Amino acid sequence: MKKSFDASKRALPHVQNLHAYVPGEQPQGEGWVKLNTNENPYPPSPNVASAIAAEVAHLRKYPEPVSARLRAAIGKRFGLSQSNVIIGNGSDNLLDLITRCFVDSEGAGHTVPSYSLYPVVAGMSDKGLVDVPFTRKMKLDVEAIVALNASVFFLTSPNAPTGVAFTRAEIASVLDRIDGLLVVDEAYVDFGGETAAPLLADYENLIVVRTFSKSYGLAGMRVGFAMAAASIIGMLDRVRDAYNLDRIAQAAALAAFEDVKYFDTHCAKVIQTRESTRERLDVLGWFTYPSAANLLFTEPKNTAGETGAEVARSLFEFLKESKVLVRYFPSHPLTCSFIRVSIGTNAEMDVFLTVVDSWLNHA
Amino acid sequence: MKKSFDASKRALPHVQNLHAYVPGEQPQGEGWVKLNTNENPYPPSPNVASAIAAEVAHLRKYPEPVSARLRAAIGKRFGLSQSNVIIGNGSDNLLDLITRCFVDSEGAGHTVPSYSLYPVVAGMSDKGLVDVPFTRKMKLDVEAIVALNASVFFLTSPNAPTGVAFTRAEIASVLDRIDGLLVVDEAYVDFGGETAAPLLADYENLIVVRTFSKSYGLAGMRVGFAMAAASIIGMLDRVRDAYNLDRIAQAAALAAFEDVKYFDTHCAKVIQTRESTRERLDVLGWFTYPSAANLLFTEPKNTAGETGAEVARSLFEFLKESKVLVRYFPSHPLTCSFIRVSIGTNAEMDVFLTVVDSWLNHA
Repeated sequence: MKKSFDASKRALPHVQNLHAYVPGEQPQGEGWVKLNTNENPYPPSPNVASAIAAEVAHLRKYPEPVSARLRAAIGKRFGLSQSNVIIGNGSDNLLDLITRCFVDSEGAGHTVPSYSLYPVVAGMSDKGLVDVPFTRKMKLDVEAIVALNASVFFLTSPNAPTGVAFTRAEIASVLDRIDGLLVVDEAYVDFGGETAAPLLADYENLIVVRTFSKSYGLAGMRVGFAMAAASIIGMLDRVRDAYNLDRIAQAAALAAFEDVKYFDTHCAKVIQTRESTRERLDVLGWFTYPSAANLLFTEPKNTAGETGAEVARSLFEFLKESKVLVRYFPSHPLTCSFIRVSIGTNAEMDVFLTVVDSWLNHA
Repeated sequence: MKKSFDASKRALPHVQNLHAYVPGEQPQGEGWVKLNTNENPYPPSPNVASAIAAEVAHLRKYPEPVSARLRAAIGKRFGLSQSNVIIGNGSDNLLDLITRCFVDSEGAGHTVPSYSLYPVVAGMSDKGLVDVPFTRKMKLDVEAIVALNASVFFLTSPNAPTGVAFTRAEIASVLDRIDGLLVVDEAYVDFGGETAAPLLADYENLIVVRTFSKSYGLAGMRVGFAMAAASIIGMLDRVRDAYNLDRIAQAAALAAFEDVKYFDTHCAKVIQTRESTRERLDVLGWFTYPSAANLLFTEPKNTAGETGAEVARSLFEFLKESKVLVRYFPSHPLTCSFIRVSIGTNAEMDVFLTVVDSWLNHA
């Protein structure tokens, strides 16, 4: 070695201290029932495959840089213009752009618990993140959000990992009273939440973020979008990679977005499966938050009637040994006694519930 | 409007002052000879289409987050390990990650002229960019780079928009004498440049950046890669979006990368076309830089024997009226008397040269 370079000391100080986001486990091999990353159990619209096939002939050429057709289609659907929409390489990309544009030295705000990417995204830009804690009731603490007065506040609605949705009226009451931006991350809204999108007509301090990963069945394609005032979108475009979306992602997302009938049918199926699963958990006497998402956040109870972190961990591990993957969040008192179960097909939920029964009999 | 928000004043100050990158024009409609964005005139390996088709069935699931198979394949080819490779959503994504990790408050360095994205990427992170100017000879000014002592120096080799390549010995002499990181952006290297990659064995202060957009014919797919010491890659991974590459991009790039025979054949064709085009420009008595890229940077001379910004602009506009798009860089004295012509097929270059003849006869 002629020249050494100590990257761990030469990276910027905030990068030295950064912890990367840990995505949900992607199991190798066959036979898993994968209910850990809130993927859609159904494939995207069949129109996606044909849209992709049509695009393959053009891969040697750069993509259209702003994803204009997709912006226009989304704008039209929501009664907005193309200038109110930006497309991201996944909604994570958009959360990063929002942070890079608008989060000041005081840091952003978020609720706890919520999507665990917010601290990572803030940290990537050397910004802090201030917590507004939930209680077990998971009610939105409007006063605390207003009092925080953050340049940007991230709110997931329906929330993760609970599935609890906040009402448009609650969100409007926040918007009325804050000076900064409210980012409403509606990754799960198509499964029953009340969208904040109509508030865009009245509130320039609102950004609504969506993703194709859940309700459109395109997690593998990395497409998200945000809707906001044109002046906000213009700023986000300044820090966007000029070609942030490849040709196939643009074509696939547009095809999925335009097949409304397929979309509606399959969201309804997921909702139906969620509610039937929920009823079976209710029969077991478990506490489960009311969910407007494609997941259930449930507090397992063992045969002795006990709940708690050890009970949840025991079930999580028993499920994993049985090749059923769910998510467990041990690091917070409000989440450690729960497991988060993504909604799969009816057959997958039957497997899950059968393993739950075995666990109950086993314990 | 119940609540207004002035994004132009509320964005962070450096974003308010930012100018977005302006990509080369993507003409609408048919009949254009598009020689303006250095795309490959040939489609990617036919294996790409089958790799994409195989991936379409899995789009509902998240991608493998680190593009491990692609990292491993690239590492193996270059005699490195998977831990020495990172994959970006285009190499632009990687330039941004490098900036976010390693560029300090003194700013980065680059040569002028070079790739016009560097100022944008530095600006996105509120960092400056210090120029090391070329003279018309386009020789690498090693002394000036050493004297600058930047935390990160971006060097495009072969350079854009000239096509001039720097030797491995020149790059080693920079690496020997600088304290910071040298990023060698080898977007065009497969068309005849000498790669710096073998220097990775000896120099931990080197990052080599590549793209699938040019030589692999996958500009529409947005895939780039960087190779460096494992500790550097580890830092870049901390600021990378957890799922920065979609499933199809990973599969397409791997298929293109592994079809070495197709790759070699088509790079050779581009090189052959470049040299035959160059000979015809030489016959016209035009000065053209020796190019190791899929482009020619040539200084048009009118029938009166004149060169200069007005002559170059005249040809650029004449070509455009004839539906031949090339690139013109009017804003710098070293580039304003030139046009940059991407290498197309032999037939496309014949069209270009025929229009050049018309321009000469017309003027």
